[in-house]
Amino acid sequence: MRTDSEEMDPTMAHEPGAPLRVALLGCGVVGSAVARQLVDHADDLAARVGAPLQLVGIAVRRPQRPRPDVPVDPTLFTADADGLVERADIVIEVIGGIDPARELILRAMAHGASVVSANKALLAEDGPTLYAAADAADVDLYYEAAVAGAIPILRPIRESLAGDDVRRVLGIVNGTTNFVLDRMDTSGAGFAETVEQAQALGYAEADPTADVEGFDAAAKAAILASLAFHTRVSSGDVYREGITEVTAGDIQAARDMDCVVKLLAICERVTGPDGGDAVSVRVHPAMIPRSHPLASVRDAFNAVFVEASAAGPLMFYGRGAGGDPTASAVLGDVVAVARHRVAGGRGPGESAYADLPVVEMGRSRTRYHISLDVADRPGVLAQVATAFAAHDVSIETVRQQAAPGEGERAKLIVVTHAASDAALAATVDALAELESVDDVASVLRVEGA
Amino acid sequence: MRTDSEEMDPTMAHEPGAPLRVALLGCGVVGSAVARQLVDHADDLAARVGAPLQLVGIAVRRPQRPRPDVPVDPTLFTADADGLVERADIVIEVIGGIDPARELILRAMAHGASVVSANKALLAEDGPTLYAAADAADVDLYYEAAVAGAIPILRPIRESLAGDDVRRVLGIVNGTTNFVLDRMDTSGAGFAETVEQAQALGYAEADPTADVEGFDAAAKAAILASLAFHTRVSSGDVYREGITEVTAGDIQAARDMDCVVKLLAICERVTGPDGGDAVSVRVHPAMIPRSHPLASVRDAFNAVFVEASAAGPLMFYGRGAGGDPTASAVLGDVVAVARHRVAGGRGPGESAYADLPVVEMGRSRTRYHISLDVADRPGVLAQVATAFAAHDVSIETVRQQAAPGEGERAKLIVVTHAASDAALAATVDALAELESVDDVASVLRVEGA
Repeated sequence: MRTDSEEMDPTMAHEPGAPLRVALLGCGVVGSAVARQLVDHADDLAARVGAPLQLVGIAVRRPQRPRPDVPVDPTLFTADADGLVERADIVIEVIGGIDPARELILRAMAHGASVVSANKALLAEDGPTLYAAADAADVDLYYEAAVAGAIPILRPIRESLAGDDVRRVLGIVNGTTNFVLDRMDTSGAGFAETVEQAQALGYAEADPTADVEGFDAAAKAAILASLAFHTRVSSGDVYREGITEVTAGDIQAARDMDCVVKLLAICERVTGPDGGDAVSVRVHPAMIPRSHPLASVRDAFNAVFVEASAAGPLMFYGRGAGGDPTASAVLGDVVAVARHRVAGGRGPGESAYADLPVVEMGRSRTRYHISLDVADRPGVLAQVATAFAAHDVSIETVRQQAAPGEGERAKLIVVTHAASDAALAATVDALAELESVDDVASVLRVEGA
Repeated sequence: MRTDSEEMDPTMAHEPGAPLRVALLGCGVVGSAVARQLVDHADDLAARVGAPLQLVGIAVRRPQRPRPDVPVDPTLFTADADGLVERADIVIEVIGGIDPARELILRAMAHGASVVSANKALLAEDGPTLYAAADAADVDLYYEAAVAGAIPILRPIRESLAGDDVRRVLGIVNGTTNFVLDRMDTSGAGFAETVEQAQALGYAEADPTADVEGFDAAAKAAILASLAFHTRVSSGDVYREGITEVTAGDIQAARDMDCVVKLLAICERVTGPDGGDAVSVRVHPAMIPRSHPLASVRDAFNAVFVEASAAGPLMFYGRGAGGDPTASAVLGDVVAVARHRVAGGRGPGESAYADLPVVEMGRSRTRYHISLDVADRPGVLAQVATAFAAHDVSIETVRQQAAPGEGERAKLIVVTHAASDAALAATVDALAELESVDDVASVLRVEGA
């Protein structure tokens, strides 16, 4: 369709009606769904773009392997990813991981291709390098599928809310951990047992570390925070606590408070040490009230709750993973960047003008829910309250329960007002040292008030 | 900032860094919020756009009227809307209604301005004329605020889901009716009484017709269907039933089924009379299960539930009205069209290539919930069942309740499988004629299965 001389200038305008050459890097669960949808919906996609999308190759490690679920000409499979990206107008990267994905994306852009990626790890680790390369090549870099799968969330934050000020993002962005916590809530079972169930059902991988330790959610938090606050935030800036320490007792403590425990990716505009705006970006389990819209997000679904100054509360809900749902987001981006190649223009690039500092976790303001096993005698509550006051942490509620069957023991449940996380952590340490406190049975942050 | 000769050619490229001239048409609740945010966030908006946004005028009927809540130079107010739109790069139309909004938008585009509008009535009645004018002038026409206020829903459908196939949209897109139905559900009160409460609280207008009769929702349904199905759908194509006939008994019947009643805007891809794809677009009250994500949308909030082939279920939730929330959506569009003027390109225009037929309501397939007051004697159920069978309507469940205090009367509650709406309506007529049926006490469609 294109002459050799046209291929020499990758940035030249698209010839009206000529096909756009699409290269696919990776053909796992997401890649094969993308390939299928490119084929099955070819007519619709062409009508929406204004030009046909022509799949010119699929880079895989083993091109000879039979792939009956991918209905394309088998000669399209190639091990030569480097060569493939040089002969495409649009490159779809669904390999994941840092290398070779990064080199391939940079090579593609250097050759004038627009890039659509689902690679949260890479975007969160090295987004600015990719943005700079996209700017230098005057091409698009889109990655809606990198966060919350099928849910349109990056485009709404980057474009729909571009005239507003995002105050806070609370996201359930990891389906595996939401499945596990939801099952723990409904069954009363413990963490290890529930992870085994999730593995048996295909909701958790054999090595669930990336999910249950919060690495996956932290990468997504970095991407969300970058877009929401026009500030560079990378994975390393994100405070991260997984769900491996969440016990059946924590879940029960949450139930007693009419709350549920969720692993949240939290991006907040806060007051920095110098009194100016700053951002707090963190991933940790937290109690949220059952009345909060995020509380009803069940199973492996994802949802992102956004609070903006003018818009108020918004929530975006849907499937956060899986081949077809992720492919939906990928193909939405493919249509967008293809339209730009046909009609001219580019989508918004990196916006990091605000350049806000990221505060360390100790300075983030949170609330704590703390269950203490204590001696049931006069003066204990005063000791406990003194420990809070000594760290300048204000108590919102205290509830005392007799521990069943143990006449001289009781349970104290304390919920604090917001205080610095460092002060709260120090308070918990001090409580553990108190002679009248047998055990700090459960400590959970509380969000969503 | 611009010379006269530059103003002669409205389509010429934007001079780097030069301000973009913004004209505001209308200064009611939404317009004044837009003006405030343009002023308050001027620096952020300039950074996000890549050029300052300069408010060059606000067209109002009474420019002399003091407006202390709009912190702009009073000389910006003008009664000369025609003149104002000719000296703007971006025109924001928040007057509402058909005329003079349409003429002003067409004039603005003819003079090379991009347009952002919140005007659902105009878009739903005459969108194609406006789209054609935008194409002719090579400018943007954006209108996110026209549907569901602050909720980003049009951009996700038009762009994020552009690579997917939308199967169905179920929207709670009118806050007034949702408030009324929610209050009826929680209080048990009737329609008239609850509307009065809503008026007293500012949730319903003195003349609530546009809301309670479903006109507002129907305009939004037309816009949603047009975008979701790449087909021209206007208000006149939308079947419309308001909530004025919803009784406390209907609400109770829904409670008994563990359902709630919502006014839904429904856009569905269906099978047409010729066996090909067609669309059903309708607004009516319906029961939905309390477990459905839309059921938990309380008060005056809006939410749009979307089912797409690959993405699966998605939901978008937030405030559907009010000055600041609507201004958030308007300003997101302003930033988008301003970016295009700075960087080149346009957003997606009308996409009506699919050109699907809109089926009439009688052919739409729905389910019905019917409560009948009947004689409590043998043979009645057989008569009733025969009436359903005669119209080829399959019954899903029947439940019989003794009517309290009336020995010889009973209540029959029938829920049908999906059938054509015409067959269901005819069945209800036939039931009313049965000698053993005293009263068809409640008829409600059932959605969200």
